[in-house]
Amino acid sequence: MAIAPCAFPLSRGAERARADRAARVHCPFPLARAPVTMDASEFRRRGKEMVDYVANYLEGIESRLVYPDVEPGYLRPLLPSSAPEEPETFEDIIGDIERIIMPGVTHWHSPYFFAYFPTASSYPAMLADMLCGAIGCIGFSWAASPACTELETVMLDWLGKMLRLPDAFLAGDASLGGGVIQGSASEATLVALLAARTKVTRRLQAAFPELTQAAIMEKLVAYSSDQAHSSVERAGLIGGVKLKPIPSDSNFSMRAAALQEALQRDKAAGLIPFFVVATLGTTNCCSFDNLLEVGPICNEEDMWLHIDAAYAGSAFICPEFRHLLDGVEFADSFNFNPHKWLLVNFDCSAMWVKQRKDLIGAFKLDPVYLKHGHQDSGLITDYRHWQIPLGRRFRSLKMWFVFRMYGVKGLQAYIRKHVQLAHEFESLVRQDPRFEICMDVTLGLVCFRLKGSNQLNETLLKRINSARKIHLVPCHLRDKFVLRFAICSREVESAHVQRAWQHIRELADEVLSLDRA
Amino acid sequence: MAIAPCAFPLSRGAERARADRAARVHCPFPLARAPVTMDASEFRRRGKEMVDYVANYLEGIESRLVYPDVEPGYLRPLLPSSAPEEPETFEDIIGDIERIIMPGVTHWHSPYFFAYFPTASSYPAMLADMLCGAIGCIGFSWAASPACTELETVMLDWLGKMLRLPDAFLAGDASLGGGVIQGSASEATLVALLAARTKVTRRLQAAFPELTQAAIMEKLVAYSSDQAHSSVERAGLIGGVKLKPIPSDSNFSMRAAALQEALQRDKAAGLIPFFVVATLGTTNCCSFDNLLEVGPICNEEDMWLHIDAAYAGSAFICPEFRHLLDGVEFADSFNFNPHKWLLVNFDCSAMWVKQRKDLIGAFKLDPVYLKHGHQDSGLITDYRHWQIPLGRRFRSLKMWFVFRMYGVKGLQAYIRKHVQLAHEFESLVRQDPRFEICMDVTLGLVCFRLKGSNQLNETLLKRINSARKIHLVPCHLRDKFVLRFAICSREVESAHVQRAWQHIRELADEVLSLDRA
Repeated sequence: MAIAPCAFPLSRGAERARADRAARVHCPFPLARAPVTMDASEFRRRGKEMVDYVANYLEGIESRLVYPDVEPGYLRPLLPSSAPEEPETFEDIIGDIERIIMPGVTHWHSPYFFAYFPTASSYPAMLADMLCGAIGCIGFSWAASPACTELETVMLDWLGKMLRLPDAFLAGDASLGGGVIQGSASEATLVALLAARTKVTRRLQAAFPELTQAAIMEKLVAYSSDQAHSSVERAGLIGGVKLKPIPSDSNFSMRAAALQEALQRDKAAGLIPFFVVATLGTTNCCSFDNLLEVGPICNEEDMWLHIDAAYAGSAFICPEFRHLLDGVEFADSFNFNPHKWLLVNFDCSAMWVKQRKDLIGAFKLDPVYLKHGHQDSGLITDYRHWQIPLGRRFRSLKMWFVFRMYGVKGLQAYIRKHVQLAHEFESLVRQDPRFEICMDVTLGLVCFRLKGSNQLNETLLKRINSARKIHLVPCHLRDKFVLRFAICSREVESAHVQRAWQHIRELADEVLSLDRA
Repeated sequence: MAIAPCAFPLSRGAERARADRAARVHCPFPLARAPVTMDASEFRRRGKEMVDYVANYLEGIESRLVYPDVEPGYLRPLLPSSAPEEPETFEDIIGDIERIIMPGVTHWHSPYFFAYFPTASSYPAMLADMLCGAIGCIGFSWAASPACTELETVMLDWLGKMLRLPDAFLAGDASLGGGVIQGSASEATLVALLAARTKVTRRLQAAFPELTQAAIMEKLVAYSSDQAHSSVERAGLIGGVKLKPIPSDSNFSMRAAALQEALQRDKAAGLIPFFVVATLGTTNCCSFDNLLEVGPICNEEDMWLHIDAAYAGSAFICPEFRHLLDGVEFADSFNFNPHKWLLVNFDCSAMWVKQRKDLIGAFKLDPVYLKHGHQDSGLITDYRHWQIPLGRRFRSLKMWFVFRMYGVKGLQAYIRKHVQLAHEFESLVRQDPRFEICMDVTLGLVCFRLKGSNQLNETLLKRINSARKIHLVPCHLRDKFVLRFAICSREVESAHVQRAWQHIRELADEVLSLDRA
């Protein structure tokens, strides 16, 4: 290990003395030297205690109630009404974690957590995040920390290859495309929509210079399936453009016919279709829009195609699920969240584009304090032009640690285990004639319900979540109230699934007997 | 410590056996159990090694070259072209950190880093972030982890009180306002602009129902000082509204007269002024817009006033700097970055609004999978309606740890030390007649230059950054190329400042002798 030498001779004692002398100039206020609240040696001790606390927490998480038993407003009375004037000790704080924080935590990593979709957690990612915090660089430009930018570009290439993305999406050595880490799929969708909006506006203004931006925006229209995540509708709201839901088919999939009908109607009305979000693995029921139908239409109509595979994307590293991504070659941008299902702790949302200039074009502003010598070399990437915020953490370290410590095979095995557990739950549900499966199980989500009224199912869900032994959330599929059972925890095993199902059946017994009474 | 009891009897041995049996059903692919790459006991060991690595890195950071000596593209050849199939060991990875990563890191926490503005780093924040990673909840709604939401609300109240913000900005028990953690000041500005855009659009549409959103957006105009951060212009671009720069005065401050002139001109042209961003502590030179002049105008004209105090905000916890915030009472929203100067590691951008309904109104969409029982109680906060992304980390833990372990007095002492060091550098510059100070020093930034041409100063800066002993970035003030010397590191002392100045003087000698030759 070679540390680059520092040119200044070091003598910390002399420094301190000089600092003490200097501290008496200028400031009219009591100039206490900033207290050393916690120095490196204290951090060595407390950091190791925290490592043990974290390991204990995760090892023992199964014995905690997965969903907290607190009422809104529980926390404020437990805390002082303002920050302390004087420093407190680490013991004070660590003791308060179990007293104040943990009673109000929903334990997303409990093996009894089956709500929403998973959020990733792994020890290698946590180790990488410690390093990320220590380096603490803000990688908005190449110069602000070259390693931060360059590792990200390479990690997105590694991940893109795992998914067998078309080469056009990889940065390689001299490509027009490449990947970036966004904070969330919501931001990726918004960034794609803004890039598409800028691109179509410039194209139209080049052809019709008299058109104002507002006149164009008024006519722009974007589309997504009626099953798309609410963040897609939000991206339309933020971007100030119409976003129209396309009715999905009986498999909750956006198909060619419905999209074409909307296009014809809207074009006839003088609107300008410019952007389509296709979802692979919807939040409601993990349905898949038909890329092989929708993609060619987008290309013919010169509409930007963005693919949101927030949850499902991780599965595409397995050859047996890769076919679900067929048609990605028609897309302009593609996004999924390794922070959901690929063991990289939040936040880490991977986005690729075929034309990086389209993203950059929507945002690029270059004040002098952010310029640097290599800027115009064409070799470097300034990721601030790819995203909404300016600042960014060194998040690719998490990917690097996880990809290396699991290996592709380990990651594939992890995905397969979850899918397997979902099928196991599905088969349990199918064995009970009181229940129905509401959607084909493709990955780690099972949508199911009691045969009967929505009211009945709402009552069942309420009982499940009040019992706090497991945690689920619902969805609506058309007019049906449906329960979602998502395989989430890194530590979930068959026994947890079996036990959860037994528990659901018992509560169903109660609900059904009440219903008959 | 009381852990809530788990209702399921635990027997991990029995579980594993059942899991092994179950693992043989359904899956047509080789169903290796997901390998345990790193379990809790291995994490205990490696986590402690990482704590030591982090402590060593930060203790020894002074002996590293602050600015890396690498060319664009340095990293890719050091890595394999794709992820490994088989798992690698932790030793492989930790060894590569010094070999591959560190040579490309710009060391933001080196005491020789004087570029941009500081980014915060403290051991208490790093400990909190370890806990945040372990809990790993995604706190988009109250129910998704009540502690995550409630601690955030209380911490923003604590911090608001430290700044003596008007009560209307605090959440208290039953206020209309409150605080939220955003990822960055850029996002806070964008969120404020979108809220203001929605509010004015609804007001106008209520009065003139025939107006379309596009017709309104075309006429909307927002303002900021010509010194505002580029992210403000970007927010205008994203929001699809005009954003006009107001010429600042000789102190680089936005004043009433210039704003009023623009308002009159634009209203006469039929435009609708709706949003003003006032900056406290600009990125260029840490100038301050005149809130006491600008604020009343915004209120009279019914324009949303957003205050961006990204860097300077932290200083307002000191009574002697609080006057710089006078006029905040006129604002609708206020934002600053504890992740810059208040020892809370990135990301943690604190934003307050007087009317939370205005933020929520711009974004609120409620799909059923995000609904929960307490939603309509009025007692709870769903922070997803306050921000661009859906997901969010448990970032308030960092504030809680830092506020408690430093205490308000410790934080104030930290700010004062940095301001003191800036004044020390200023007085050194003033003693050398070849140099000039370009802007009053108020906080931790000194803008200075060689008397003479821009070319001369550009050459000087280039020499400084090529020497890599210290790191600075420039700015333009009007037509002058200026060097920025920002006090950044938590560990910077008078001796580092003295040594940096000695180094700058020596390079100036060289540059000036070349210039004369």
